[in-house]
Amino acid sequence: MEEIRYEPIGEVRSPFETPEDVPVNPTGPTDASGTVELAPEYEEGLTDIEGFSHVVVLAHLHRVEGYALQASPPFAPGANPGIFATSGPRRPNPIAQSVLRLRDVDGVTLSVDWLDLVDGTPVLDVKPHAPKPHECKDIRIGWLEDIHEE
Amino acid sequence: MEEIRYEPIGEVRSPFETPEDVPVNPTGPTDASGTVELAPEYEEGLTDIEGFSHVVVLAHLHRVEGYALQASPPFAPGANPGIFATSGPRRPNPIAQSVLRLRDVDGVTLSVDWLDLVDGTPVLDVKPHAPKPHECKDIRIGWLEDIHEE
Repeated sequence: MEEIRYEPIGEVRSPFETPEDVPVNPTGPTDASGTVELAPEYEEGLTDIEGFSHVVVLAHLHRVEGYALQASPPFAPGANPGIFATSGPRRPNPIAQSVLRLRDVDGVTLSVDWLDLVDGTPVLDVKPHAPKPHECKDIRIGWLEDIHEE
Repeated sequence: MEEIRYEPIGEVRSPFETPEDVPVNPTGPTDASGTVELAPEYEEGLTDIEGFSHVVVLAHLHRVEGYALQASPPFAPGANPGIFATSGPRRPNPIAQSVLRLRDVDGVTLSVDWLDLVDGTPVLDVKPHAPKPHECKDIRIGWLEDIHEE
């Protein structure tokens, strides 16, 4: 299959300097704040984004090296789900999907909470976080069930 | 910023042949079913995925040409949000984030409902759909508010 190429649209500014600094919390947000800074030419694309309380950032996990098809989530000793049954970072295409709380928008700078990305992470896309009603009900979450309940 | 390169991990099989065939429904799912077929070498990565009722598929919208920073959602005449305040396809990096209902898993083939991708769409990533509790409450959805309520 043909290779796909993307140009980052921006970059993350974060207090986390390395992947090891990012706390892994499967049930709640981090308490880190930072910014998502788009390149100036994309400012018009942010029109009306301030109406949303949360955004989804798709980002390239540039500090991750290689991948493993079997995961070992640090918060679930003994579980060995496949990588596609987790949101772990060591994926064939290391794309993060982060739901972030949007505090403020100033030009091309989004101030966000719940940050779980390291400083300098290239941003691929920003989308509004607007789950549709049918996406939130009657959901089974497999091996994560016990963890979300704890 | 440096170009990012991904190899697709699989492909979508869908009844939709062109982007124009995909119904745009901002409040509910499509009634289309199809499959997400990964390359055979990724089978181990799907371990335990069958425990999830829904998956998120990140896919490259290969039929989309160019982008527009100002969007004109067909279901919202008069609204002109920026592209990053919508989930529209004509984005600088045309990555779709589709929540699909998972019916069945057979080897590297995921049978899914709610399909909104065209046949042959390259798949970048598969993740479990497992919204965390804090991601589902106190959400404001800006210009989409009126539409979700209709």
